[in-house]
Amino acid sequence: MAVSPLHVVPHLTTALSGPLQHLETVLLGHQSRIEAWLRGEWLKTPAPFYASVDLRNAGFKLAPVDTNLFPAGFNNLNRAFLPLCIQATQSAIERTCPTASGVLLVPESHTRNVYYLESLATLREIIAKAGFEVRIGSLLPGLTEARRIDLPSGRAVLLEPIRREGRRIEVEGFSPCLILLNNDLAGGRPPVLEDLDQPIVPPPWLGWTDRLKSLHFTHYRAVAREFAELLDIDPWLIDPVFRNCGEIDFMKRDGEDCLARNTEALLEEVRAKYAAYGIDREPFVVVKADAGTYGMAIMTVKSPAEVRRLNRKQRSRMAATKEGRAVSKVLLQEGVYTFETWGPGGAPAEGAVAEPVVYLIDHFVVGGFYRVHTQRGPQENLNAPGMHFQPLAFAETCINPDDRQAPDAEPNRFYAYGVIARLALLAAAREVAEHA
Amino acid sequence: MAVSPLHVVPHLTTALSGPLQHLETVLLGHQSRIEAWLRGEWLKTPAPFYASVDLRNAGFKLAPVDTNLFPAGFNNLNRAFLPLCIQATQSAIERTCPTASGVLLVPESHTRNVYYLESLATLREIIAKAGFEVRIGSLLPGLTEARRIDLPSGRAVLLEPIRREGRRIEVEGFSPCLILLNNDLAGGRPPVLEDLDQPIVPPPWLGWTDRLKSLHFTHYRAVAREFAELLDIDPWLIDPVFRNCGEIDFMKRDGEDCLARNTEALLEEVRAKYAAYGIDREPFVVVKADAGTYGMAIMTVKSPAEVRRLNRKQRSRMAATKEGRAVSKVLLQEGVYTFETWGPGGAPAEGAVAEPVVYLIDHFVVGGFYRVHTQRGPQENLNAPGMHFQPLAFAETCINPDDRQAPDAEPNRFYAYGVIARLALLAAAREVAEHA
Repeated sequence: MAVSPLHVVPHLTTALSGPLQHLETVLLGHQSRIEAWLRGEWLKTPAPFYASVDLRNAGFKLAPVDTNLFPAGFNNLNRAFLPLCIQATQSAIERTCPTASGVLLVPESHTRNVYYLESLATLREIIAKAGFEVRIGSLLPGLTEARRIDLPSGRAVLLEPIRREGRRIEVEGFSPCLILLNNDLAGGRPPVLEDLDQPIVPPPWLGWTDRLKSLHFTHYRAVAREFAELLDIDPWLIDPVFRNCGEIDFMKRDGEDCLARNTEALLEEVRAKYAAYGIDREPFVVVKADAGTYGMAIMTVKSPAEVRRLNRKQRSRMAATKEGRAVSKVLLQEGVYTFETWGPGGAPAEGAVAEPVVYLIDHFVVGGFYRVHTQRGPQENLNAPGMHFQPLAFAETCINPDDRQAPDAEPNRFYAYGVIARLALLAAAREVAEHA
Repeated sequence: MAVSPLHVVPHLTTALSGPLQHLETVLLGHQSRIEAWLRGEWLKTPAPFYASVDLRNAGFKLAPVDTNLFPAGFNNLNRAFLPLCIQATQSAIERTCPTASGVLLVPESHTRNVYYLESLATLREIIAKAGFEVRIGSLLPGLTEARRIDLPSGRAVLLEPIRREGRRIEVEGFSPCLILLNNDLAGGRPPVLEDLDQPIVPPPWLGWTDRLKSLHFTHYRAVAREFAELLDIDPWLIDPVFRNCGEIDFMKRDGEDCLARNTEALLEEVRAKYAAYGIDREPFVVVKADAGTYGMAIMTVKSPAEVRRLNRKQRSRMAATKEGRAVSKVLLQEGVYTFETWGPGGAPAEGAVAEPVVYLIDHFVVGGFYRVHTQRGPQENLNAPGMHFQPLAFAETCINPDDRQAPDAEPNRFYAYGVIARLALLAAAREVAEHA
């Protein structure tokens, strides 16, 4: 397979990269200690089937801001590293269901989103090449017969109606021994998936019907502290501080005091850190629905007053998330600046901001890409409604650092991304263990 | 990392490729059944730590002719697929020794063979990148202090003397929790490795001091039969028939009758198969030491008379193998023609014969290369003394077949190689299980 010659790679264009270069140096220098620690953790707490982790790289700080346990975007990965995905999938499924040969993939019902469907086609290909028979069982309401959708890549996906037979589900002539969910269940847990004898991975209760970001980041905070202790670094360098509010009603302005109070407390905490590290930036806070988003119900504030001054349009945008679900619980998270930029020809572009997204299958880092957005600033959310990011596949894997290059050279930076993404994965693993 | 653009790929230049294309078609068409079967087999019998398998591709037949459990040649793999090696090593070691962070690599004592030392440097790099501390503990007689050897690649290896401390071994300031053997122990089992509390993988009794090729191929025969039954094919298409003789003394001409009788029987058996498949070739037999070779003590014969007519020089060449070990047990194996050829510009070259070698770590196929030799014919042994093969790295992995291409297209042929190599690996796994 060909590797796209991506000589155009993101650069950190900030004078504030000191602590991060320090962090990258520490991670590279303690590779075997880090890997041994992670090995021990995976023995205690097995990794979820797969995940994608949105990172933000502020130069002075590298942290996860979102961990998706039903990842899409597989089509954005460098095809040269598909073999890594295939091998990791073999590891994952042989453990989850050793005798499985039939896998039913249950995707989102976005039949008009070709980006999603291309990701689905790639995921299907990965599982097939890992040595499984794969069919796609759709939860699309009213689907009574198989529907084939042709894709721009020349591939096609065949969505088949799911049939329930007692405590099993199947599609026409195919009774899978494993159900692989690629649907975040933000619209609720469908009854057809309840009480099955077949294993479902990830389990449906990890969907956004039940999951809270604040629980994830509570676990992440603990992971970051343990990891920071291992390496004797400040956990804040890898951990965005956060608070949360329940009982919010944006339309009725219920809970506004909680939002304002927590915004102020977070800004205060971050201001103190910025001062300690000599970072001359204005802290900001990201307010988002505690249960799932597709870049919906999310906003950036720099003062408690902003929370109180929201106009009707802003309120209604915050009031509901994907599939119209009302937002009553809110996460307030330290905003992490994105200072990685990208420009054609390798020159640092003006304002072309790049946010890394790292993909994991089982406990293996299998690749990643950058969301590159030219119209957004370094403090904005890059996964926002109407965003038209350009995916830029990582040119290298995250597991092949090169000690003959500088700590911030591409393979080494990617290694750092892979480490921080695995910390987020470990937090997710602990969420699962706690629930199970 | 860059992938070398190897557009120059081997081609089968024979009219006899019918059955093989059939075999490739069958393997591709039953991928999920094959993978499910292999998954089940690995559960019953875990794979050895690593292996390389020499295959021969006759167009009408694809079979392993040697399975090396202490592989060298890692430097010949495509560097683009190092991440696959790293990931597979993580899988292998986390199972073999989950809490290990210190690995002692015990290599061959070939300090003047830069090809071997480059392989060692690559293997060291793979293990380090998998997240382990690696040091090299040498069995070199008389080594009392660390010896650094600089390599043409710009890398270096540091060979350190092994010290025994009670039931553990270590090198200066480093007490490993796992010993990884990369020495086939053809010279005998060193006492320093006996009765250790630390795990040694692969176990020393898998070295050529104890191991017999005939036992390996006995297991392989059983594996090939089971696999052939699964796919309803003739096991001969993937299995070289063989016989063996003990009590041989080439210098004294002891056991000559056994050699002649078995040569005749094998030729007869192969002649019948050639006739059945309409293969217009003269069968031949490869005679080799039953316990290990480095391409030593090996010869090709086409009649029992040839065995009786050996001159003194030929006899003495057959009488001893690596490190002067006397040959008393002999394997006689159906010779498999090599019809894959290679030539600059992609044109089938005249007489440039290519033999595939597939690398495995744990039960994962991680890559391979071709031994390309311009001075040898299709029936000669390509791993022979004085051979100067050119390694030609596989341009693609063996786990990423492409169903939109022909069955003999490169990624698909490589998939077939990966399957047959794994059958040989399974035979080795059963050898280990039987002994353990």
